[in-house]
Amino acid sequence: MSGAQSDVPSPGLTSFDHTSLGQRVLFGSHRAAENIARAVTDLGAQRVLVVAGRSSALVAGDVTRALPVVASIDEVAQHVPAERAAAAVEVAESSGADLVVTIGGGSATGLGKAVALHTGLPLVAIPTTFAGSEATDVWGITTDGVKKTGSDPRVLPRAVVYDAALTLGLPRGSVAVSSLNAVAHGVDGLWAPRADPINRALSTEGLRTLVPALQRLAQAGSQDDDEAGGQLALREQLLHGAHLTAVAFASAGSGLHHKVCHVLGGAFGLPHAEMHAIVLPHVTAFNAPAAPDAAARLAELFDGVPAATGLRQLLADLGGPQALRDVGLTERDLRRAAELVLPNVPPSNPRPVDVDALEALLRAAWAGDPVTEEGADR
Amino acid sequence: MSGAQSDVPSPGLTSFDHTSLGQRVLFGSHRAAENIARAVTDLGAQRVLVVAGRSSALVAGDVTRALPVVASIDEVAQHVPAERAAAAVEVAESSGADLVVTIGGGSATGLGKAVALHTGLPLVAIPTTFAGSEATDVWGITTDGVKKTGSDPRVLPRAVVYDAALTLGLPRGSVAVSSLNAVAHGVDGLWAPRADPINRALSTEGLRTLVPALQRLAQAGSQDDDEAGGQLALREQLLHGAHLTAVAFASAGSGLHHKVCHVLGGAFGLPHAEMHAIVLPHVTAFNAPAAPDAAARLAELFDGVPAATGLRQLLADLGGPQALRDVGLTERDLRRAAELVLPNVPPSNPRPVDVDALEALLRAAWAGDPVTEEGADR
Repeated sequence: MSGAQSDVPSPGLTSFDHTSLGQRVLFGSHRAAENIARAVTDLGAQRVLVVAGRSSALVAGDVTRALPVVASIDEVAQHVPAERAAAAVEVAESSGADLVVTIGGGSATGLGKAVALHTGLPLVAIPTTFAGSEATDVWGITTDGVKKTGSDPRVLPRAVVYDAALTLGLPRGSVAVSSLNAVAHGVDGLWAPRADPINRALSTEGLRTLVPALQRLAQAGSQDDDEAGGQLALREQLLHGAHLTAVAFASAGSGLHHKVCHVLGGAFGLPHAEMHAIVLPHVTAFNAPAAPDAAARLAELFDGVPAATGLRQLLADLGGPQALRDVGLTERDLRRAAELVLPNVPPSNPRPVDVDALEALLRAAWAGDPVTEEGADR
Repeated sequence: MSGAQSDVPSPGLTSFDHTSLGQRVLFGSHRAAENIARAVTDLGAQRVLVVAGRSSALVAGDVTRALPVVASIDEVAQHVPAERAAAAVEVAESSGADLVVTIGGGSATGLGKAVALHTGLPLVAIPTTFAGSEATDVWGITTDGVKKTGSDPRVLPRAVVYDAALTLGLPRGSVAVSSLNAVAHGVDGLWAPRADPINRALSTEGLRTLVPALQRLAQAGSQDDDEAGGQLALREQLLHGAHLTAVAFASAGSGLHHKVCHVLGGAFGLPHAEMHAIVLPHVTAFNAPAAPDAAARLAELFDGVPAATGLRQLLADLGGPQALRDVGLTERDLRRAAELVLPNVPPSNPRPVDVDALEALLRAAWAGDPVTEEGADR
């Protein structure tokens, strides 16, 4: 036995520093009203501030009808403008609220997090999309077009109430791209800088839930899913699968895929969801040969088909665009994009990356080439 | 969209209430001293109370040498006798300690939890076995031979430092039974009362780590594992696998297996580790046909062999006893054991249980019969 220190990790050995976030998850279809009441009561709150955009007003009224609501905010916007955040904090303080409930997608959750950050009030989230912000302690506030982000324990929702029935109003196309984003969280999390056995557990289970559900979603018109019950069960799977990969991704950090997409979105203004969907199979084809454990886990999802091929097929079956040139990237942007991505690549990426490799990857994604997996189909 | 309530769960739908516990895990071989110093510093502590039994004294001295230690306790005992707990609380208070560090197995962790329960001091655990108490908020204190247990957020270690090198002194047999106990946490967690998609993720990954590592451990004399590095990598897998199943089990609760073993241990005084190892394949054979998702997950661990058969073979390969009659149960105890177990069976057990079914299960485990899996090998 020895407690001797060593700064040189031995081959085959594992070393990590993982922080699990404490959070309650209440999950049940048609149970949002009941579960939010339970969560609020158990937190001892008596004065609730409700944050929900106008498009969620009906749902919000229905779901919060049993709560002791003292104020409501229905002005929410993407990326949390600082003036909206300041106004919301003011409402929270003047109303004497002792808890914030958000209902909606990333914009509502984000505004609630801004209030929690500035007031320290506990936050409970009811997400109505698959974006996953409710599972993280990451906040973002935009001032003069510049988004500042950070992580703080105060913005982690104490409880999350998931009700898949609230997502039934989302069109099938939005469900598909939002869920594919959740798949990207899970895949990229497997080789992200802080990937470890704990977040790998959540990524793997999340993907194991999301991929078959998306395959069923792709089979449009299948009898099961046309029935209300089948559709609801499908949305439930997408919802808890997305929760798992969001928790995993928040813990593991951004891998190569998210670094590529961050640059493509920021510098070239490509549409978020489509870009993620197109790029993921190409990053997977690139990394998989150097990440055998991840490759094997991903291949299991597709009955042994290499992951990149399986992901590419899934995207095609879901009917989304297959090439970056179809969503606004031009051929002459490719070199510059590669140069912009390079300094952002995590040093721990399983496969070494240089600007030529990145350009080749981006060119394949730009052209919509079939994915080629040297050594991935092992 | 609707937030309407319903108390009748629909078939195929999922409903759960899961609380993830917030905890930091620092994992690395030969890094215990470095990682405990980091954990203590990050918690802002300046006066550390160290709890470690005499058998861990050398390790404890080595690992805590850089900490600001103000007091030490080296009297630890199984099941945390109340007088030991009271004495430890007294030491914590008189020394002005602001944090408790435990080093050792369940007895040391348990005493540290008792101190945290009574003083509210933060706790950091360095486990040297695979028992898993460090991953839970469950405490136990024994007064006049009666153990009182409960759960309290104060007793959850804020951080856990895992160093597989500290387990190298454990004999192979102890490692095997302690790890099999971790396997039982994972298997039973799949059908326990509060099993849900989140703890299932952790059970599955934990088992996926533990089972191959135990299969390697069973191949005594294999060259890889005789090398120090191979043995250390194996212990690392057992350690983080055991962490995952402990977290899952704490969340999912006791399933049929742990209810059976609780009665057999309490009423008939059977040895804890051996009893668990013998019973697990029989409970698995009983439940698997009624729990197809769990059965499929478990069969994956054994390359498609039904789980009960795979578990039975693993136990045999590890060289443990195969029959309850070999560890102290008599044939005339079987009916009474079944009658004692029956009221403890979780109502949510996937397969209905009556006293005859329990007696048959116990008789098979008593005789060391081969497991029979009606419908499990689907």
